[in-house]
Amino acid sequence: LASKLPAVGTTVFTRMSQLAAQHGAVNLGQGFPDFPCDPKLVDMVTEAMRAGFNQYPMMAGAPVLRNAIAAKIGALYGHAYDADSEITVTAGATQALTTAILCCVHPGDEVIIIEPAYDSYLPTVELAGGVPVLVQMEVGPEGYRVPWERIAAAVTPKTRLLVINTPHNPTGTVLRQADIDALTAIVQGTDILILADEVYEHMVYDGERHESMSRHPVLAARSFVVSSFGKTYHVTGWKVGYVAAPAPLMAEFRKVHQYNVFTTNTPMQHGIAAYMADPAPYLELPAFYQHKRDLFRAGLADSRFELLPADGTYFQCVRYGAISDLPEAAFAEWLTSEIKVAAIPVAAFYQGGTESGIVRFCFAKQDDTLRQALDRLARV
Amino acid sequence: LASKLPAVGTTVFTRMSQLAAQHGAVNLGQGFPDFPCDPKLVDMVTEAMRAGFNQYPMMAGAPVLRNAIAAKIGALYGHAYDADSEITVTAGATQALTTAILCCVHPGDEVIIIEPAYDSYLPTVELAGGVPVLVQMEVGPEGYRVPWERIAAAVTPKTRLLVINTPHNPTGTVLRQADIDALTAIVQGTDILILADEVYEHMVYDGERHESMSRHPVLAARSFVVSSFGKTYHVTGWKVGYVAAPAPLMAEFRKVHQYNVFTTNTPMQHGIAAYMADPAPYLELPAFYQHKRDLFRAGLADSRFELLPADGTYFQCVRYGAISDLPEAAFAEWLTSEIKVAAIPVAAFYQGGTESGIVRFCFAKQDDTLRQALDRLARV
Ligand SMILES: CSCCC(=O)C(=O)O
Ligand SMILES: CSCCC(=O)C(=O)O
Repeated sequence: LASKLPAVGTTVFTRMSQLAAQHGAVNLGQGFPDFPCDPKLVDMVTEAMRAGFNQYPMMAGAPVLRNAIAAKIGALYGHAYDADSEITVTAGATQALTTAILCCVHPGDEVIIIEPAYDSYLPTVELAGGVPVLVQMEVGPEGYRVPWERIAAAVTPKTRLLVINTPHNPTGTVLRQADIDALTAIVQGTDILILADEVYEHMVYDGERHESMSRHPVLAARSFVVSSFGKTYHVTGWKVGYVAAPAPLMAEFRKVHQYNVFTTNTPMQHGIAAYMADPAPYLELPAFYQHKRDLFRAGLADSRFELLPADGTYFQCVRYGAISDLPEAAFAEWLTSEIKVAAIPVAAFYQGGTESGIVRFCFAKQDDTLRQALDRLARV
Repeated sequence: LASKLPAVGTTVFTRMSQLAAQHGAVNLGQGFPDFPCDPKLVDMVTEAMRAGFNQYPMMAGAPVLRNAIAAKIGALYGHAYDADSEITVTAGATQALTTAILCCVHPGDEVIIIEPAYDSYLPTVELAGGVPVLVQMEVGPEGYRVPWERIAAAVTPKTRLLVINTPHNPTGTVLRQADIDALTAIVQGTDILILADEVYEHMVYDGERHESMSRHPVLAARSFVVSSFGKTYHVTGWKVGYVAAPAPLMAEFRKVHQYNVFTTNTPMQHGIAAYMADPAPYLELPAFYQHKRDLFRAGLADSRFELLPADGTYFQCVRYGAISDLPEAAFAEWLTSEIKVAAIPVAAFYQGGTESGIVRFCFAKQDDTLRQALDRLARV
């Protein structure tokens, strides 16, 4: 069987989680919380199952959940998506990203991907027969920066899609108004679409705001905006996400969606919709995670790890050049097996495995878990 | 935005369900039960959520569920799949079918699809850049028959995949040993793969047995075998299914799967795994649905509908030539709006909309629902 994705192996997240388990390491690799979700959310899903919400929902998602999503986006970002024709509930954000790429990338179309990049974007573009055009972020002493001038230079008449991720995994970079202006200048007057991975939308710190594409009409008009309840509600295993897009884009998205998964888990949708009635859980998320970020950074402040900025997401990137000149994968493995703290090599987010001497830690963990990891890391 | 699937509109299932709701019709169109699932199953999912099974499971599925699936297939069909490398849990059977097609069909590859065909096969082949080769079943007085000689004639050096569906939706046709022999003769010695949609595996009646590809080593060695817990456990909205395939095929499947959905709902997987410990629910399913089939057929025996055989699935096809010469879609709409019973036109399962004067009813309904529908239909 000739492979459609010959370069693809086991994801780095699976590999590092397995290695962490094998060595009894604290797993700060794969991004997921080690604390429970709100029991109220579990009760709401249970109620939905007991009330008989167990058969196919509507293809685009349960209306009650689509309405709640549209209301949330309206309240937070001021864009009025039509719940009927512009919101679709997906089997996690990954399925939303993949379906968006499959629905709009034709063979030969170019897709600009900014590296380091979440590992699903590139193979999915290849699966669609598209041509990934990779532009690398610049990483200086002040951290990572999106090089808009090089993105502008990468645009050709074949550019169909630009993948944006803010807040950015793995770097924690958060787009600001100046980035939005640069992005707008690039796409305005072209027919380039934007796929915006905003799954960490509720994890922006220091009082800054999340620049959702939805906030900016010129961008919203050409964007698939993707988010994830798994991240927001501490249930990464529930696999419920959504995509918002203007009706003509959404019509194409749904054509692929209905034959990809048809629809998404009914009782989870109803439980989440009920839970969304109270905005507190997502409004309080920045403070909740900023505390963890600050705890984690404080714990490494006097260590030989060099902390990069962490403005958003639940990830913290660190330089380890003062400790080791091992390549990133080897260093992450050494950290896991010897120091008993698992991390993710940032090189895994580059197609060519670009080395920058940086690894990523996930701080979506109980304070005690973080303290245990910090004890170990501080001794390195 | 140029469409990747220009021919695709809203699925017939969604359209007929909407029409049924609009006219207050008994909905025997879209296939889903109108009775609740076993409350024990709901409790087991609740327990899994309360026990904290809410984060990412393993990419291929929770081991406890993969083991249960492998054990079931071993017990029923005598094939020993390795749970580790040969079973993957999916976000419903549709996602399994689509992922299988995307992982093995290269642009230009031919895929043989037997019509009438479930509506996702063909657009998914097109999405992969494959060429659908359609072969129509023969429908005579004895019902539908798979024309193996015409399938054999449709094979070319470019044939990559043959889609098999047994028990068959919409016709209820169940493959027998003679069909298996004919299929084996076609594929043996070629490198044609089989995608076997076996979601109705536990709905075979009159003491006949389901001829899973898994039973037949020559076929199992080249097959993706797909099934659905939604169908088996009366929870079509949970969107949990699985695929079994030899390790080299599964390796390619998982490459696409991990970037399509990454993984499937964790608490649902654990709940279903616990529920599978008792085989009674699926062992009793043939008797449960045969009763409904017999009730439905008895109710139409003296009507002007002509009953076709219904050896498997929860669907009953009927000829309506004695009642009307409307095209199928118009007849199904008339039945829905005037007689207040929704059905699905079988023409919707043909790319070209082939008319055969046949509509499909779903009998996965409470006996009272069926009686109410029969009252109405008998008067036609
Ligand atoms: C889908 S597993 C990876 C989780 C994640 O988003 C990450 O760790 O970057
Ligand atoms: C995915 S909705 C359709 C359900 C079904 O399998 C059918 O009615 O044929």
